[in-house]
Amino acid sequence: MDSADALLQRFVDIVGPAHALTAAVDIEPYLVEGRGLYHGASPLVLKPGSTEEVAAILKLASATGTPIVPAGGRTGLVGGQVPRQESRDVVLSLERMNRVREVDTVGDVIVVDGGCILADVQKAAEAHERLFPLSLGSEGSCRIGGNLSTNAGGTAVLAYGNMRQLCLGLEVVLPTGEIWDGLRRLKKDNSGYDLRDLFIGAEGTLGVITGAVLKLFPRPRGRQVAFAGLKSPADALALFERASLLCGTALTGFELMPRIGVEFTTRHIPGVRDPLDTAHDWYALIDISTSDSAETAEAMIAALMEQAFEADLVQDAVIAASLTQQDALWHMRESMSEAQKPEGGSIKHDVSVPVARIPQFLEEAGAAVLAAMPGARICAFGHLGDGNIHYNISQPVGADKAAFIARWREINAIVHAIVRKAGGSISAEHGVGQLKRDELIATRPEIETELMNRIKLAFDPAGIMNPGKMISPQ
Amino acid sequence: MDSADALLQRFVDIVGPAHALTAAVDIEPYLVEGRGLYHGASPLVLKPGSTEEVAAILKLASATGTPIVPAGGRTGLVGGQVPRQESRDVVLSLERMNRVREVDTVGDVIVVDGGCILADVQKAAEAHERLFPLSLGSEGSCRIGGNLSTNAGGTAVLAYGNMRQLCLGLEVVLPTGEIWDGLRRLKKDNSGYDLRDLFIGAEGTLGVITGAVLKLFPRPRGRQVAFAGLKSPADALALFERASLLCGTALTGFELMPRIGVEFTTRHIPGVRDPLDTAHDWYALIDISTSDSAETAEAMIAALMEQAFEADLVQDAVIAASLTQQDALWHMRESMSEAQKPEGGSIKHDVSVPVARIPQFLEEAGAAVLAAMPGARICAFGHLGDGNIHYNISQPVGADKAAFIARWREINAIVHAIVRKAGGSISAEHGVGQLKRDELIATRPEIETELMNRIKLAFDPAGIMNPGKMISPQ
Repeated sequence: MDSADALLQRFVDIVGPAHALTAAVDIEPYLVEGRGLYHGASPLVLKPGSTEEVAAILKLASATGTPIVPAGGRTGLVGGQVPRQESRDVVLSLERMNRVREVDTVGDVIVVDGGCILADVQKAAEAHERLFPLSLGSEGSCRIGGNLSTNAGGTAVLAYGNMRQLCLGLEVVLPTGEIWDGLRRLKKDNSGYDLRDLFIGAEGTLGVITGAVLKLFPRPRGRQVAFAGLKSPADALALFERASLLCGTALTGFELMPRIGVEFTTRHIPGVRDPLDTAHDWYALIDISTSDSAETAEAMIAALMEQAFEADLVQDAVIAASLTQQDALWHMRESMSEAQKPEGGSIKHDVSVPVARIPQFLEEAGAAVLAAMPGARICAFGHLGDGNIHYNISQPVGADKAAFIARWREINAIVHAIVRKAGGSISAEHGVGQLKRDELIATRPEIETELMNRIKLAFDPAGIMNPGKMISPQ
Repeated sequence: MDSADALLQRFVDIVGPAHALTAAVDIEPYLVEGRGLYHGASPLVLKPGSTEEVAAILKLASATGTPIVPAGGRTGLVGGQVPRQESRDVVLSLERMNRVREVDTVGDVIVVDGGCILADVQKAAEAHERLFPLSLGSEGSCRIGGNLSTNAGGTAVLAYGNMRQLCLGLEVVLPTGEIWDGLRRLKKDNSGYDLRDLFIGAEGTLGVITGAVLKLFPRPRGRQVAFAGLKSPADALALFERASLLCGTALTGFELMPRIGVEFTTRHIPGVRDPLDTAHDWYALIDISTSDSAETAEAMIAALMEQAFEADLVQDAVIAASLTQQDALWHMRESMSEAQKPEGGSIKHDVSVPVARIPQFLEEAGAAVLAAMPGARICAFGHLGDGNIHYNISQPVGADKAAFIARWREINAIVHAIVRKAGGSISAEHGVGQLKRDELIATRPEIETELMNRIKLAFDPAGIMNPGKMISPQ
């Protein structure tokens, strides 16, 4: 046994051989990500069963300078969970730490392991007549530690906020192996620097989130979902403003979709049909949830639609008449990314701008992209109410997919320049990972990167945590 | 001119002599705080007029090791804004940087200087038919930089959150004099460590907040305020739970008050009268605001009161019939601290516990305090919905005030031990400052203080920013 193997064995001894993967075939699933953009290397996957085992692993890693890549459900879209190429990075998977520790219906909190699957948290809340509002496409497999480490967003941010707003406390194992027990259940606590929000969104570069206290909410009593055909993003924005004023925090979702997205989904996603009789250039999906009664939601959607038709903001609209119809409308929106796949290559952007600037952003970016690539099919959709657009571009009909994808960075540069000019973010909800690290370092204020590097050094002096992700390589 | 004076002159030159105070009589107001708990020393007060002047001051301070104490409205309750005793700390007052820079009613944000007075922000929002919801006793003089640096709470946290939740972006001058332009207006931005939330609540120890982007909300269309007599904190908690379920985020305030507090206010505050005909041991003040219509608020308060009487949670109640009556009910609550003054000395605590633990906390703390000090008059009131109690204790009738106040730390220790046992915070919304620094260092997990010290060192290597406040002295 050479010294490298001897070191790996010391890690294996912490979790026991039954919970360590050393064979290449077993390790392989931990080296790839869904879209095939990244493929890393690793000699070892560890599956600790307790916070103390995680602590022992990180202590040994810091002492020996062994790089550690934390892994949850591995559904991230920026390569944050993938070890580096040709690396000896050790993967630390939280998959065995998947318990709901406690549901407290008086304090309205749920305490969970970092490896708890999001859907399991939702179910546990439901079983106690509560709502845990985080909802996103990968909820059946993504895990809370990853949701926290990427500050996940999803479809209900408008009313409930990102993961950051849904978390009251954390348990974190620091790179040095020390355990920070910050599992607080307090709505108010001004007793020092905000460590919690520093770990949230840090993509595993400052420590491993092993536990969390999350907020629960009353289950809504009323819900209404409407789908409206519109002339333009400007009309969608005006409609959003009216909906905000009328519904306040009862406005749970406000999604924008282009005609081409509806065409793609009706063409490629089984069961999806156009809810309206005629075609419209743009569409809005409006979701209203009320806590007091079903009648309030009914009255709100009726009043909103009346106002919208009177102001000529909406050309046609349908209000879902059943839970099934509500799900069908959301299914169209949620399969929009999937529906692009049969249309060839897709160059993607996850950007945000101030909400009021969305129409202008879409106009400027559309003109610039089409000037650079005539025939590009822009399928820009997303959370208009959050200012967050998934600006996806399908290849021109008949184009060569590889040649199209080869222009990814070039098109990114065009779109991101317009985002920056609008005071926006090129990394709205998916995070930085490997995908956006270098571009952010090149474009954000230097002092910002400098402060982040200083924080990294202060928390992880040995530089072992998720190297090559988010911040400068050490 | 000796070298110390020469150094001070260099600071004066940055802002100009018209904006520097050097005479003891002019400086004095900057050395004291409202309750007279702290009295510091300083040779110089600087009033910069721009972010660039603040930067020049901090650059010189870092280069020369000159301690800087940032000051806003100086209404803080923990001595955070007061220079150290016998110190040469230079006070940096933001009072001239008091502009509302922009009101954006489409993006629903307001951009302000760090020295903008809170009431001016509220007024600017109102002038544009919007609400800036932060509201607290000192709003006529406290300034936004201080509100942010202490993560201020107040009376509408239940619906709108603390200052942390109300802020989208910051402009901060770092201790080195570099300017971080983080004035973003984005609802979503996952592009690195959360620097914003690190500066919020840092009490000026990591830099000076010179500008902020704050959220605006629709002005509520409906509002109802009720005042209810209750048997116990347990009934108050049960009532709060029903109100939360029924009203959701329309529940803007839920305050708890004891009988003695009502007696103090009716006795000492001009114009305050008991709204109910008979005495009750406890009271709840319930505030409901609705965005859609006045009718919704009316229906909610009616339904809540009906449920509450049926379940025997409420013994008697009044619903304010006019804006004047609403203000009168809130005035009673807001003058409860003031009304204690004529009753002699008051030992105060600003604590939070998980909401569900409030009844048990009040019972245990009450028994322990009375055992240590028979005759103590406990006036525990506050934001029940936030788990935040202002646990104030008036001296026994006829006791010696000085002897009573001399037991401040002893009584603190008794109450805080029960808070900690309940998983609570001894610093809920007022902050740490000088008042709670040592106790927090002695009682919080060591690793937590250690991480905070590392952050401090990373941001302020020269140790010039607000020394002696919040974290370990350097």
